Amino acid sequence: MNLGAIEAGGTKFVLCVGDEAGNVLERVSIPTLSPEETMKGIFEFFDNKEIEALGVGCFGPIDPDLSSPTYGYITTTPKPGWGNYNIMGALKERYNIPMAFDTDVNGAALGEAYFGAAKGLDSALYLTIGTGIGGGAIVEGKLVHGLLHPEMGHMHLTPRSDDHYAGKCPFHGTCFEGLAAGPAIEERWGMKATQLAPDHIAWDMEADYIAQALCIYILTLSPKKIILGGGVMHQKHLFPMIHHYVQEKLAGYVQKDEIITDAIKDYIVYPGLGDNAGVCGALALAKSAL
Amino acid sequence: MNLGAIEAGGTKFVLCVGDEAGNVLERVSIPTLSPEETMKGIFEFFDNKEIEALGVGCFGPIDPDLSSPTYGYITTTPKPGWGNYNIMGALKERYNIPMAFDTDVNGAALGEAYFGAAKGLDSALYLTIGTGIGGGAIVEGKLVHGLLHPEMGHMHLTPRSDDHYAGKCPFHGTCFEGLAAGPAIEERWGMKATQLAPDHIAWDMEADYIAQALCIYILTLSPKKIILGGGVMHQKHLFPMIHHYVQEKLAGYVQKDEIITDAIKDYIVYPGLGDNAGVCGALALAKSAL
Repeated sequence: MNLGAIEAGGTKFVLCVGDEAGNVLERVSIPTLSPEETMKGIFEFFDNKEIEALGVGCFGPIDPDLSSPTYGYITTTPKPGWGNYNIMGALKERYNIPMAFDTDVNGAALGEAYFGAAKGLDSALYLTIGTGIGGGAIVEGKLVHGLLHPEMGHMHLTPRSDDHYAGKCPFHGTCFEGLAAGPAIEERWGMKATQLAPDHIAWDMEADYIAQALCIYILTLSPKKIILGGGVMHQKHLFPMIHHYVQEKLAGYVQKDEIITDAIKDYIVYPGLGDNAGVCGALALAKSAL
Repeated sequence: MNLGAIEAGGTKFVLCVGDEAGNVLERVSIPTLSPEETMKGIFEFFDNKEIEALGVGCFGPIDPDLSSPTYGYITTTPKPGWGNYNIMGALKERYNIPMAFDTDVNGAALGEAYFGAAKGLDSALYLTIGTGIGGGAIVEGKLVHGLLHPEMGHMHLTPRSDDHYAGKCPFHGTCFEGLAAGPAIEERWGMKATQLAPDHIAWDMEADYIAQALCIYILTLSPKKIILGGGVMHQKHLFPMIHHYVQEKLAGYVQKDEIITDAIKDYIVYPGLGDNAGVCGALALAKSAL
C-alpha cells in the first residue's frame, strides 16, 4: 500500500510517496511560494500517484483539533498568504482519502515511534533543537494534544550563574528556546555554533540547559525513550554531557535503570531516521489516518 | 452496576461501593496496619458486596505498568511491611473481577475527568498541593504513564529573588514540592500556613511558584482544564493570583481564550469532587477497568 506524505516547511515542501514500513519510494522538493502556487505543485505530484492515505507534517502554528471549525488551518503565521490558510481543506477537496494533519515536530515524533529510535514503544518524546526548539510526545501510543499542541520549547528554565546572556526569545527571554536554540548559542558567544570547539564552555552550558528541560519532561510525561534531533544535536559530544547532567539533576529520584545506570545512553538518543525525520514523520501521520 | 473503590493511603484505607456515575453508596475507613491486617479488613468489607469491578488508588511509589513483573506492587515505600508488597495480587486472588491500579493522584485526575470539574473532557491535569505535590494527567482520554508514572511535584523551579529559603525536598531542594508544598510554607515562614493572613507575601510567592509550574504543564501537556486540589488550595484567594501570574508568565504566547482572557477563571479551577476526590478517583479507576 502506498502512502503520501507532505513535509510542509516555511522554505520548502517535501512531497513523498512511501509505504507502511516507512520506506521512502519517491520524493521531490518544491519551494514554498504562495498557497495557490504551492498547492499546484502538490497536485501535480500526487494526482497520478495511487496513494491510500495522506499525512501532512506542517510548520506552525496550526490548528490540529478535529473538533475545531478551523481544523486543518495554518493559523497566525506571518508568512505572506499562509495566515489562516485552510491547507487540509484544499487537499480534501482534491483527494477523497484518509488524511492526518499535525505539526512537523509531532509528525517527527510519530515517525520515530513507528519507524525509528522508539519503534514499537507506546511512549516517547521527540525534541528538535535547532533554529527553534519544539517537542512532540507520544503517550499510550497517541500524540499529545489538548487545548492546543505542546509548545515545549517555551518553558522557563533557570539560567546558570555563569551565564549573563539575556535570552533570545521575544516572548519569554530565558525560556528553553531563548537560552539553548542555535541562534541563542551564536548570539551569546558571538560565533557560529559549529565554530565552537568541543571543549568550549558553551557545550557544557548547552548540555546543562537541555538536561534541565529533559528532567522536567521526564517528571511530567515519563517517556520510555527520549530522542534529540535538530541541527544543534549534530554535536554528538553533547550526549554524554546531557546524560551526566540528567542523572545529577534527578538525584536518583526516578529509580529506573534507564535513568540511574549507564543504560541512560540508550534512553536519551539521536534520531533513528536522521535526515528523513520530516518525511517519515508525515508518512507516519498517513499511516495513523488509516 | 456497583463498583468497588479503595483509596489506599499511608494512614488509612477508605473502602467504598459506588456506581458508574460516581455516586458513593457506602463507605468505611480502616487504619493502615500491616498488609495482612489491612487486607483482612478489605476482604471483610467487600466479600458480601456485589461489585463488578474494583479500582485502587494507592499511595506510592507503585508499579502500575501492566507489562511489568512487579505490576500491582507498592514498591520502595519505607512504610513497614508494605515495601514490595503485591497488593493487586492479593486482591486478584480473592476477587475474579476487572481491576485497575494506579497512584492516588492519577485516580483523582481520572475522577475529575469522569465525574468532576473536567467531566467529559479528554484532556486534563489534576494537581494536589498539600503535604506533598503530585500530579496526574489525562491525554486523549487516558492517564499518562510511561517509563513510570509522572512525578510532577519534583521538577525544578526558579526561586524568586526575594525568597531565601533553601527548599524542603531532600532530593532536589528547590523543586516545586520543595518550594511550595505545605511543609515548605510552614518552615519558610515559621508558622502554620493557615495562620498566614491572606495579604501575607507568602501567598503571592506561593501563587508565583504554582504559576511557574502550571506554565510548564501547559506548554508540555496542553491540558484542556487544570484542577488544583490539596490542603494548600483550600486558600481560595490563591486562584486569582495564580490566574494573573500564569497570564503574565506565558506573555500571550499560547493564543487561546482559556488562557489570555478572563475565561482563565474557568480553566484553572478548584476540584469538582471536593473531599470525595480520593474515593471517586478509585471509582473512576474501577469504571476504566470495565
